This record gives sequence, structure tokens and C-alpha cells, in this order.
Amino acid sequence: MRNSNRQWVLRKRPVGDIKPGDLELVETPIPVPGPGQILVRTLYLSLDPTNRIWMSDMEQYMPPVQIGEVMRGGTIGIVEQSNNPDFQKGDLLSGIAGWQEFSLADGGMKLPPGVPPTAAMSVLGMTGLTAYFGLLDVGKPKAGETVVVSAAAGAVGSIVGQIAKLKGCRVVGIAGSDEKCRHVVKDFGFDACINYKKENVSAALKRECPNGIDVDFENAGGEILQAVLDHINLRARIALCGMISSYNDTTPKPGPNITNILMKRARIEGFIVIDYFPRMGEFLAEMGPWVAQGKIKYDVHVVKGMENALDALNLLFTGGNTGKLLVQASEA
Amino acid sequence: MRNSNRQWVLRKRPVGDIKPGDLELVETPIPVPGPGQILVRTLYLSLDPTNRIWMSDMEQYMPPVQIGEVMRGGTIGIVEQSNNPDFQKGDLLSGIAGWQEFSLADGGMKLPPGVPPTAAMSVLGMTGLTAYFGLLDVGKPKAGETVVVSAAAGAVGSIVGQIAKLKGCRVVGIAGSDEKCRHVVKDFGFDACINYKKENVSAALKRECPNGIDVDFENAGGEILQAVLDHINLRARIALCGMISSYNDTTPKPGPNITNILMKRARIEGFIVIDYFPRMGEFLAEMGPWVAQGKIKYDVHVVKGMENALDALNLLFTGGNTGKLLVQASEA
Repeated sequence: MRNSNRQWVLRKRPVGDIKPGDLELVETPIPVPGPGQILVRTLYLSLDPTNRIWMSDMEQYMPPVQIGEVMRGGTIGIVEQSNNPDFQKGDLLSGIAGWQEFSLADGGMKLPPGVPPTAAMSVLGMTGLTAYFGLLDVGKPKAGETVVVSAAAGAVGSIVGQIAKLKGCRVVGIAGSDEKCRHVVKDFGFDACINYKKENVSAALKRECPNGIDVDFENAGGEILQAVLDHINLRARIALCGMISSYNDTTPKPGPNITNILMKRARIEGFIVIDYFPRMGEFLAEMGPWVAQGKIKYDVHVVKGMENALDALNLLFTGGNTGKLLVQASEA
Repeated sequence: MRNSNRQWVLRKRPVGDIKPGDLELVETPIPVPGPGQILVRTLYLSLDPTNRIWMSDMEQYMPPVQIGEVMRGGTIGIVEQSNNPDFQKGDLLSGIAGWQEFSLADGGMKLPPGVPPTAAMSVLGMTGLTAYFGLLDVGKPKAGETVVVSAAAGAVGSIVGQIAKLKGCRVVGIAGSDEKCRHVVKDFGFDACINYKKENVSAALKRECPNGIDVDFENAGGEILQAVLDHINLRARIALCGMISSYNDTTPKPGPNITNILMKRARIEGFIVIDYFPRMGEFLAEMGPWVAQGKIKYDVHVVKGMENALDALNLLFTGGNTGKLLVQASEA
């Protein structure tokens, strides 16, 4: 076990791309748990597009991280010391302990037995919950419909596509390389995948969605969303999960032309996974067996060392990761 | 009765603003009804923003009017001659007879007795149906919520605001002159109205919607919609009825930045009145008494003479009309 606590502290709100100096890696003493408290050692830190949102002071769904605070982030940790009779050394907890190697807590949510930490941080955690309810509750696909998924090789997108296939849909992914596209079709079972860096997305969607688009699970925004809107069907649903293409914008860009939303009586609806926390049980009841039976596969992309968290985060914006991006801060 | 039939024929698809020569007024013989047919003389022609859409060959919700065809438009007419035992001279019919003084039909929809033609063409017709279901079925306002209505002095907007008031909402209109704003507040009972030509709409919405915006009934699009999106509440609903600000665009413009749709888990949903035709009865059951009791008021702006239809249509785009714009083609 290390003898200090490395933490990433927000020093400046990034303008555009995150720059060295916006966050600082500081070394502090490992905190000492008080009465009733537990000391948790971080095993995995989840890196997500929303981290970039939390660094800015834009209008958002949670308070932004304040300057001088440890960066916010989802984590899985292991109890190192416990002054709380409900927790024992070795318990695995999921939480939002942030970008640091150690944290204190009064308690926490224990991982269900038998669920590996990397699954709890992806397919059976927030990532899977986002995919499941975003697709089914917001997108509402029906068997036989065509579902388009942007960032299809990403943590959320790859699961969305597999759920849509299990629900009987034609599924077309959009991703940023031929390798990702092959992976999405071969390993995740999408019917087709469009490399948006190589092809005109609108033309490719026309080819791959001969019956038009009924549901779009939108992770990208920008030109990709515009191309999707060109081909939506009557009463199409755009489940707006994220718009990673714009998170590094320095000034707000205009959005897509929404004329087709009117003409096709379609719907763009935003959602945030936190609203679905109360329905975690419903999600696990269907997703748990799917994962156990190998019907839903998932990728994790693990970067070792808390000191590499910031460089790793940028992989999300350059498309350098495939699947759920995690920092492994320490070994169980 | 005239001894010829004046018709407006689409000659060229307008590029941008409608220009002289895009439509031509032609004079043809009055048609002669065949066996089983009726000859209908047009009393009123409805002018609507969607006329401009029908002139273009953009992706739309009905086939565009073809070059050489009589311009499409909603009408109320009176039966002049009938070879159909179900119809008699003097019956009033509503339909889509187009921009012409006479038309043949095999039948038609009779006006309910006691409903004046101008009401049947506005508050108790398509205009009212649009307002009613767009607000209640798409916008879903709850008592105490704040509803914003653009083109508030227009045929649809003025009715939307009154329904929202009857449902217990705070209602803020947006219109293009102080006179319209006064009319909207004084005569239609809106709580406030913003003159978008004089004020910064975003700043004014902030002032007039101290609890934020829950429902937006959108008729304008463009910068007005963007200003609305700046102030939407959690789970706000944008009922997208029209975007008159863009109908004369020569190239599609980008739309609003939709980041707030994501952050606020909000919804933009398009609708078209034709989808609600089957629910006309439900609408009349509530709206009929409201109108009869004077709880819902409506304006009609009548321009006389079919030859003036094209100039009159442009009033919709310059803001020159207040309330439902009709051409009176002949007297009952």
C-alpha cells in the first residue's frame, strides 16, 4: 500500500481542450478515519465524458466541481480500515470517491457478491444503466425498427446496440475507425457500422438504413446528429445521452437543423442516468442474466496508475479508447 | 356570382421569399358538375404558414403542390349546384378546395349548424385543433407551470395562451410589436408578452418567467427558440408546431444549441395537426363550450378577394396580420 494519497485537484476551468495545469496531481497524507468512518482505497476510477462537463461552470445537471476540489469521479474501492461495524476490511464499495487514491466515508454501497469490479463499473453499473434506460425508456424501440447508435464502440454505445439486437431491431453503429467498426459488427453483433472519419455519414445512413431511422441513441451530437436527422422516420425518437463532439467547444455552437423533427413529428429527449438510480433493480433483473449468459458482452479499457488519469480522460475525446475507460489506481 | 373561376397556380418553386411569378392568377371557366358531383363556391380561404412549405419540394408531411397545380389551401365553401342527393344548394362545407373560387367535389364535410364560417376556419377548426392538442397532448402543461408561446398574437398562439390560462398556468407570449403585446395581455389574458423586436428575448424571458419555463409552444424557431432553451426547467417540453422564421430560408440553417435539452432532460417534439383529425370530437367537446361561453376569444383578419391571396399570405411572414388570416373569396 502506498504511503501517500495522490489526488487530482481542479485548478482552473479548462477552456476548450483540457490543458496541463487545469488539474494538478498533489500528494497528501493518507487520511485517518474518525469514529464510525471507513478508509477506502480506490481500485478503479471511471472516466466518462461527463467529467469534462463537471470541470466547466456551464449550466448542468449537478453542481460543477469547485476550483481547489478533488475532481469528481465514479469509483470502486476496497475498505482498508473500518471504524464502522457494518463494514470490514476487504469489502468492495462503489461510489463517487473522486480522482484520488484514498478517501474517507461514513459508509458505502457494497458490490453484490460475484460481480467483478470491472463489470460493476461498466455493464452492470452506470454505463449499463445509461444504455438500458436511455434506449428502452427514452428511445422505446419496437422489434423490427431501425436503431442508430453513435460512439458505437464506446462503453455505452456497445451495450445499447446489443440490447437493441436482443429486442429485435436492426442496429447500425457509427464509430471512428475501421477497426472499431469491425469490432462492433463482429463482436457486438451490430448489423452494420459506419466509419464517420471515412464516409459521408448521411449517405452511409441512407444505405444502411433502407427503412429509415426509428430510434437514434445519440452520444456524439454535431454533424453526426444532423446526418441522423436527415433520415428519421415518422415519430422517430432521438434519445439524447450526450454530445461529446461539443464538450470541448469554447463557445456554444448552433445545433442541428430541427425541421425534420417537425415534419416527422419526431422527438429529441435528453436524459441523465442519475434519474434512473431508483430503477437499478429493474435494470439488474434483466441485464444480470444477459451478462451471465454471455448475451451482452462488454469491453474495458484499463489504464494503470492514478497519475495517468488526466491523459487517459483525453482518450475519450480523441477516440483512443474502446469500451469502458477505467483507471486502475491499485490492485485488490 | 362571377362568371369565371380565378385560380392561383404554382408556376415555380419559390426560392426564399415568394416572388411575383412564382404563382400565377389564371382565369378559367367555372367547372360543370358531373353525375353525383357538386359545385362549390369558395367563401373563405385559410392562409397558413404551412402554405409556404407546400410550395417547396423540401421533405415534408404531405406531398408538395406540383408545378402547374392549383395551390393547396383549406377552405369553406357553399354548394352552388348539386347532382348529389346528400347535398343541397346553400350547404356550407369545409375542405381543402385550394386557392380558387370554384371547385368540384363528390361530397364534403358539412359545417355544424350555428357555427359561423370564420369560427369553423379558426378557433373551432384546424387552428384551434392545432392549439389544443399541441399544447395539451404534446406540451402537457400542469397547473402552476409556466408556458411560453411564440407568435402569441397569431391565430394558433393566441388560442394556446388562453387554453393554458384556463388550465391554470402562467402564460408569457412573444410577439412582434407593442400593439400585439398589449392585445395579447389585455384581450387574451396572457400574464405578460415580450416584444422580440424591441427587447433581448432571453433577458426578458428571465424577467417574465421567474420560475423558469416548463412548456414552450413553438411557432417561431430560430433565435426565439434558442432564447427559450436558455431558461427551460427540468423536464421541460417544447411542443414544436412551426418555425416560421425559417420557412423562407434558401439553405437550411443550423438549429438551436440543444445542450440544455440534455442537461434538463427536456424534450423537443414535433407535431402536425393532421394527426389529430381523428380526435376532433374530443376537441370540440371542450373547446365548443369555451367559445360559446366567451372563455376563448379569437381574431380573424379577413382580406377580400381571391386575387389578393398571395399578397395576403406574405402578411404571415412580415407579421402584418393579427389572428387568423383568411381570404374572403365571395359572400355567402
